[in-house]
Amino acid sequence: MIKYLDGIQADVSIPKDHPRYKSLMVREHLAEMVEKGMVNPTGLISHGRGEAFDYLMGEKTLDASLEAEKAAAAYLLRAKRPMVCVNGNAAALDAKRLIALAEEIPAALEINLFHRTEERVEKLIRYMESEGGKNVLGRNPDARIPGLNHDRALCTKTLYDCDAIVVPIEDGDRAEALVKMGKVVISIDINPLSRTSRTATVPVSDEMSRALENIIRFVKELRGKDDEIESIIKSYSNDSNRKAVLHQIAEYLESQ
Amino acid sequence: MIKYLDGIQADVSIPKDHPRYKSLMVREHLAEMVEKGMVNPTGLISHGRGEAFDYLMGEKTLDASLEAEKAAAAYLLRAKRPMVCVNGNAAALDAKRLIALAEEIPAALEINLFHRTEERVEKLIRYMESEGGKNVLGRNPDARIPGLNHDRALCTKTLYDCDAIVVPIEDGDRAEALVKMGKVVISIDINPLSRTSRTATVPVSDEMSRALENIIRFVKELRGKDDEIESIIKSYSNDSNRKAVLHQIAEYLESQ
Repeated sequence: MIKYLDGIQADVSIPKDHPRYKSLMVREHLAEMVEKGMVNPTGLISHGRGEAFDYLMGEKTLDASLEAEKAAAAYLLRAKRPMVCVNGNAAALDAKRLIALAEEIPAALEINLFHRTEERVEKLIRYMESEGGKNVLGRNPDARIPGLNHDRALCTKTLYDCDAIVVPIEDGDRAEALVKMGKVVISIDINPLSRTSRTATVPVSDEMSRALENIIRFVKELRGKDDEIESIIKSYSNDSNRKAVLHQIAEYLESQ
Repeated sequence: MIKYLDGIQADVSIPKDHPRYKSLMVREHLAEMVEKGMVNPTGLISHGRGEAFDYLMGEKTLDASLEAEKAAAAYLLRAKRPMVCVNGNAAALDAKRLIALAEEIPAALEINLFHRTEERVEKLIRYMESEGGKNVLGRNPDARIPGLNHDRALCTKTLYDCDAIVVPIEDGDRAEALVKMGKVVISIDINPLSRTSRTATVPVSDEMSRALENIIRFVKELRGKDDEIESIIKSYSNDSNRKAVLHQIAEYLESQ
C-alpha cells in the first residue's frame, strides 16, 4: 500500500492479470509523483483526458499517428538546434524514453513547467538525472518566451534559440507562443481536438510512450537519408493528418 | 491562490472570460477536495477521462443520452425502493443536484466508496449535509454486496435491499455486482465504452450535472403517468442506446 494524503490510501493490491493492470499502475505512479511534488494535482486530470483518447484508439498507434511520428523524426533530423522539452507529467510518464529520444537525435533536454516553481524544476531535473539524463537544462532560466505571462514564459537561452522542439503534453497557449517564434513545434498530445494539436507544426496524437518509441525508431531509420527526409516533410500536412486521426477514431467508435 | 501539496500552487487567477473557465474552476475545486481528503487522487484521473468524453460530445447532452435520461426517470419512478449512491468524485462535482434528485424521486441517499475509509465516509456525509442533504446513509455499514472483496463490498441494508440504484461515476466491478443482485442499475458515466456503461441496465452517457438535471426534469414530468412510464421502459434498449451515443460522438468527430 502506498500512503497518500490525509488518510486516503490507494489500492496497489492490483492483480497482475487485471485487464487494466498497466493503466492502473501508471495511475498509482502519477499519484505518487503528485505526493512527491513533481506532478501538479491537476496533471492527474490531464492524464485522465489522455487515457480517454487512448481508449478511443483501442490503445494502439493509429496509421495516421504513425505518419505524424515519421514526419516528426524527419523535422528533428533536419533541425540545426533541436530540443526536447519536458514537464512534470511527461517526466513522470516516461523519463527514460524522453532521454532516449534526446540522445538519439541528439537534442538538448530541458525541464520547463507550466506551474513553475524553482523547487519543482530542481526536483524534476534530479529525477531525470536519476533516470539517466545528462546535462538536463532548466535551472537558472535566462530568457523568456514572448507572449506568455509570469513564470510561464521562463526558459533557457538554448530553448529560446532552438529551431525545432518536441513538446509532450503541452498547454495550448505555450504551443501557440512557440509556433509564433517560428519554431517547428512537434506536440505529443493524444487529443487531436486540443488547441495544442490544432496549433503545432506536427501534432502527434498518440500515447506518449508509444509516440516516443516510434519517433526514435524513425530517427534511426531516416538518419542520413536527406532526400527521403525532404520528401516526407514536403508531403506532410498537419491539417489533413489531424483529420485522418479523427476519422480513424470515429471508425473505431462505430465498430464498438 | 489555493495552496496545494508540497510547494505546488494552482493558478486560480483564471480570468472569468477564459474559454475554459468553468472546466478550470471544476478542476481547482476537485484538487481542493483531494487536499481535504474527500476525493482520492486517482479520482482526478477519472475526472479527466470524463472531460475528454465531454469534449467529444461538444459539451452538451446528445439526443441518445437524453433518451437514456428519460428511461432512467421512468425506472426510478417505477421502483419501490430507489437509491442514489454517491462517491467522492460525484459529491465533489455536484452534491446539490445529487441531493435534489434523491428528494425529487424520493430515494434514499448513501455515501459508498471504492477507496473506503470510515474517516472519508464521515467527511463526505458531513459535506453532503453541509450542502443540504438530510438523512445521508453510509455510516455503520451492516450488509455486503456479494462478489466484491474487502471494504469495497460494505454497504447499508437499505442499499442491499434497494430495487433501483443510481450510480454516478461507478467502477465496472461494482456496477456488475449490483446488476447481478437483480437491481435496476442506472449508471451516469460519460464514457459509453466503459465496463460500467456496458453492464448497467440504463447507462447514461452524459456529464453528471447535465444528466442529473435532465433526470430530475423527467421525474417531474412523468410522475403519475404510469402508462407512459411502462411504454418508455418497454421501448428502451440499453445496447442500441449505447450504440446511438457512439454513433453521435463519431459524427461529431468527423465534423471537426
